[in-house]
Amino acid sequence: MIEEVVPDIVISRLPRYLQTLNEMAKEGLHTISSQTLSERLGTTAAQIRKDLSFFGGFGKQGMGYSVYNLIEQLQRILNLDRIWQVVVVGAGDLGRALTRYQGFAIRGIEIVTMFDVDPKVVGTRVGSIMVCHADEMESEIQKRGVKIAILTLPAEAAQVTADRLVNVGVKAILNYTPVTLRLPESVHVQQVDPVLHLQHLMYYLGGNQA
Amino acid sequence: MIEEVVPDIVISRLPRYLQTLNEMAKEGLHTISSQTLSERLGTTAAQIRKDLSFFGGFGKQGMGYSVYNLIEQLQRILNLDRIWQVVVVGAGDLGRALTRYQGFAIRGIEIVTMFDVDPKVVGTRVGSIMVCHADEMESEIQKRGVKIAILTLPAEAAQVTADRLVNVGVKAILNYTPVTLRLPESVHVQQVDPVLHLQHLMYYLGGNQA
Repeated sequence: MIEEVVPDIVISRLPRYLQTLNEMAKEGLHTISSQTLSERLGTTAAQIRKDLSFFGGFGKQGMGYSVYNLIEQLQRILNLDRIWQVVVVGAGDLGRALTRYQGFAIRGIEIVTMFDVDPKVVGTRVGSIMVCHADEMESEIQKRGVKIAILTLPAEAAQVTADRLVNVGVKAILNYTPVTLRLPESVHVQQVDPVLHLQHLMYYLGGNQA
Repeated sequence: MIEEVVPDIVISRLPRYLQTLNEMAKEGLHTISSQTLSERLGTTAAQIRKDLSFFGGFGKQGMGYSVYNLIEQLQRILNLDRIWQVVVVGAGDLGRALTRYQGFAIRGIEIVTMFDVDPKVVGTRVGSIMVCHADEMESEIQKRGVKIAILTLPAEAAQVTADRLVNVGVKAILNYTPVTLRLPESVHVQQVDPVLHLQHLMYYLGGNQA
């Protein structure tokens, strides 16, 4: 792989490219132009070509892309050619909904344990996943070598819990709390706050409501 | 407001600026430099200044930003100076978790109704919100003039439901299904698929797992 530093914004688009290519593969498409792909994604062909050029580019001029080849390359770039173990910290409604989410397993994501402090939920199961006490968090994560955690905790507990996770080797956090986490640069965080997404949408609704 | 077309990627960053500024206001900060704000956000001061310059810029050279003024301006830009009504379509685990989410009301988002087709959940309540049958979706949305919907449905139902919502005036969809929706350009969609966020993170974990 070309080891140029790729802007994070480019990386953020690759999973959607992959998702759309998988849909196209299911529909029986074998070869597509960047134009077709861009229309499906609501972006421009130039954007897609530019993004892919960071990784060497995969299309022949005027020939379009091989759907399967592009899928394979994107999977390799995103390190999706393996199973990733993930822990869910916080077994409330959202943590449980995520743990039950059908879309993980088929895309190589294995939720291995949930953690909570509430005695009413510790020891129960969500689907096949056991909810362990948060006291066991460090030892469980180290034992399994888990690098990825999903945080679905109350806001007050977010920073201290994230610090604990990072201390035992977690390198990537999907943060569903409304807190902007302060962590070492080597740790990658994606924040998913439905309010932030809605506020982004509301920008475009100006004048639509009185 | 300056009516230049602002790139969507700029808009996508404003809610996080606002969130961080609100945290700073809570901490008692009144004036901040773009440097301080950028450190908190894990971005660069130049990026923040460039983003804000689309809206006229709000700092005096060398003086930093007034936290409260910047909050007020961002709220205005994002149309957050009002209450927005939102419907949730799909009353499964995730729909219920979202409807119960404490972070909406304090930030001006009011979930008004949920819809589902499952006779076991139609007519029940999630917190104070009634789950209505999806047959009533069009009439309810038109009656209330709702412009924003959150989709937490099975993938198979996503496109047809989104089409129905758009037909009765919905202009913004927060899409939690794994489907890339095809809708008129005038409709704004934010897709929230935990897998896409995790895949983005996995890019940075190459070599961390054997």
